[in-house]
Amino acid sequence: MITEDILAGLRSIVGASGLKTADALSLINPGADEHNLDAGVMVVPQNTGQVAAILHLCNEQGIAVVPHGGRTGLAGGAVSTPGEIILSLAAMTRIESLSATAGTAIVESGVTLQALQEAAAAVNLSTGIDIASRGSATIGGMISTNAGGMEAFRHGVMRHRVLGLEVVLPDGSIMSEMAQVSKSNEGYDLKQLFIGAEGTLGIVTRAVIRLAPSDEFTATALVACPSATSAVALFQTLQRNRGLNLLRAEFMARTYFALAARDLGPASLAAFTQAPAYLILETDATDQLLAQSALEEALANGIEEGLVADAILAQSEKGRSEIWNIREDSNVVTRAYPHGYWFDISVPLQELETWLKQFEQGIAALGPDISGFAFGHLGDGNLHVGVAGESVNPDKDAVKAIIYANLKQMGGSFSAEHGIGLEKKPELKTLIDPVKLALMQSIKKTIDPKGIMNPGKIIG
Amino acid sequence: MITEDILAGLRSIVGASGLKTADALSLINPGADEHNLDAGVMVVPQNTGQVAAILHLCNEQGIAVVPHGGRTGLAGGAVSTPGEIILSLAAMTRIESLSATAGTAIVESGVTLQALQEAAAAVNLSTGIDIASRGSATIGGMISTNAGGMEAFRHGVMRHRVLGLEVVLPDGSIMSEMAQVSKSNEGYDLKQLFIGAEGTLGIVTRAVIRLAPSDEFTATALVACPSATSAVALFQTLQRNRGLNLLRAEFMARTYFALAARDLGPASLAAFTQAPAYLILETDATDQLLAQSALEEALANGIEEGLVADAILAQSEKGRSEIWNIREDSNVVTRAYPHGYWFDISVPLQELETWLKQFEQGIAALGPDISGFAFGHLGDGNLHVGVAGESVNPDKDAVKAIIYANLKQMGGSFSAEHGIGLEKKPELKTLIDPVKLALMQSIKKTIDPKGIMNPGKIIG
Repeated sequence: MITEDILAGLRSIVGASGLKTADALSLINPGADEHNLDAGVMVVPQNTGQVAAILHLCNEQGIAVVPHGGRTGLAGGAVSTPGEIILSLAAMTRIESLSATAGTAIVESGVTLQALQEAAAAVNLSTGIDIASRGSATIGGMISTNAGGMEAFRHGVMRHRVLGLEVVLPDGSIMSEMAQVSKSNEGYDLKQLFIGAEGTLGIVTRAVIRLAPSDEFTATALVACPSATSAVALFQTLQRNRGLNLLRAEFMARTYFALAARDLGPASLAAFTQAPAYLILETDATDQLLAQSALEEALANGIEEGLVADAILAQSEKGRSEIWNIREDSNVVTRAYPHGYWFDISVPLQELETWLKQFEQGIAALGPDISGFAFGHLGDGNLHVGVAGESVNPDKDAVKAIIYANLKQMGGSFSAEHGIGLEKKPELKTLIDPVKLALMQSIKKTIDPKGIMNPGKIIG
Repeated sequence: MITEDILAGLRSIVGASGLKTADALSLINPGADEHNLDAGVMVVPQNTGQVAAILHLCNEQGIAVVPHGGRTGLAGGAVSTPGEIILSLAAMTRIESLSATAGTAIVESGVTLQALQEAAAAVNLSTGIDIASRGSATIGGMISTNAGGMEAFRHGVMRHRVLGLEVVLPDGSIMSEMAQVSKSNEGYDLKQLFIGAEGTLGIVTRAVIRLAPSDEFTATALVACPSATSAVALFQTLQRNRGLNLLRAEFMARTYFALAARDLGPASLAAFTQAPAYLILETDATDQLLAQSALEEALANGIEEGLVADAILAQSEKGRSEIWNIREDSNVVTRAYPHGYWFDISVPLQELETWLKQFEQGIAALGPDISGFAFGHLGDGNLHVGVAGESVNPDKDAVKAIIYANLKQMGGSFSAEHGIGLEKKPELKTLIDPVKLALMQSIKKTIDPKGIMNPGKIIG
């Protein structure tokens, strides 16, 4: 219960404009989950000191705190309920410094990915990570969910981009590990606990991010492959090809591509070769012609080796956008099937074909009205999978049984890059090692004994 | 106190040949620290089940356990004392599987780095990490110290090579997180706690390691640079050069190079240009001529741009070995100055020149008999630094004050890649954030309430 006294206490920390309720809150976009703003109280601190003071107050009063970044998370990690307060990092958007020499940036956690991408691009660097929600997603949110995205096979996931971290603990103390170097072994690497903890252990306020070299010019191709195995083989060949610099390798199984190409067009893509597996490949280079010719040659070799059935090389920025739209506007499935189930899994590459066959057969066995859509980031074996019926959805447990069958034994994961939030809690309870689950609970209790940090998310 | 009953209990787990005391132990090389075997009792399990049974027994009896890998650690993390038992992973050396398609290997933790390197090379892959002690250092030891080495700027440190981990906790329970994929967010990433914990939280028994593409042919050059800043600029230029694939960039300041070239030879290297900064650069490629010509051209450009004063390109395997010997046999300093002090720090690249100037001036101020030797892994700003007097050593605290001055403010680290062990405990206590230190102690207590795991190392 948020009393007037508590509101007054919060107001004294952040000022009247930093405390949003009722009308002020109704102007804010709830983001990816309609329940994100249900708490009805949002506090917007300007700096780490204010975050610390807020947590200190809430910990003393036993008030739950739900941290908000860009509210783009897909697993319900930002959902809030009355009686809780939302702590938004939206006002902490400073890029404090950026060193081109060292390839590092020091940022506040409310900086959006796109803002950091633009600052890095100005000195020919990239963030080494990219996700479709770049305009809203914040660095703090991406750290808290250990975001992945399209370039992870080359540059790692968010965890690998974080050199240093500042976190406010539930009691309001500030843990600072702001090293700007990749080699630092100063005792337990505690910042790793907060990366991917979805705000259940503390609040990320600042970070040192490692940037990556990047080149200005890109080449993009849509490729049809005779099988998932050949798509993997093509990926490996291109990844090792010194003549090009593979940046992205997005995968689409037949059903997804057919739907997306039909509904998103243009006609040239809708009429593209039918195949069991498609890739969107993107490379970068110091020169446009070089990028195009290297990718063209590599794909010609792929055709000769039987790894490629057909390919379209984008010849303009418009052509590139049309190709990317097929993959990035994956809501095309939800528009056609609003009530489908969604999964976010990783499959080791040597098992990809096996998993896809098992998936297709399983979905087919559910009945002729049921469709399965698989697409994602090939290099990581990360598939986003939607399953939906034309009129009636299949039984959710039957679908889960198909998706998760043998996945753990294969070395895969039921939770690749969207996090656990509220949505994957049933999976977490049943699919992870019970020894790990018990230790997670001990760690949660050690760091957040009163359970005020984003309660009910992940565990508890 | 290790009683006969306890020895009998251990013997019943590992068999008579798996328990080594007295004579059997005296045949074993103590490794990098003469006190590593002082416990006088070593148990050598064959599998994870035996490790679990040993820890269960020791936890019940309150007996301290010191895990041993290859005993190559330089910070005293494997030192043992009477009353403790040593648990050696030397018999757990299976490479369980290696997938060329996925670029992953599943190994037991006693596998040496070199054994895994050889298995990976057979399918044109590399471990993505290399250290001079590769013949003895084990994967488990490298995970427990979060080893770095020469290729970290390109492929990350050991933490970034670990996809999955199996750990035996102090109570004998087994935590298994053996995912084979890089995108897995199944709750808190607890395996990160054990990476770099130097055996103080549990024992790493198996791991999934991510391998990296590699090429067979290398080109190697010794380069003299007019300043540390130009060495950094050259490194950045080469790292972004698409025509070559920079694999290693080792740094040597003038004093180290002069001593090593003089004592290790050959005459051609001893007579090489005098300069404030030297690099050993290594690239790899699919073809020997290509590797050589690309590096030669890049260095010619470096001369034109004023970043390179002079360079020697190795023309044979013998020439390559001679160049590498100057850097890898860094014990050359210890042979000349047996009682010097050693440090293992990271300096952000934009601060390298400043730090080196500050270091040289500080050492000079200690007196004419005192020499400072700095060398290391340029890409990570990781310097190994030795300081020694001709006859009498300087005051150690005065030396520490020079080495650590402004290092934290610069964003550097006092402990880069060797770990804390016993040696860096004073630094840990005084130089890290007290909030982090307190949380480390809470975590240690949560996971190892009886304090049996490698006591006295890092904390406690």
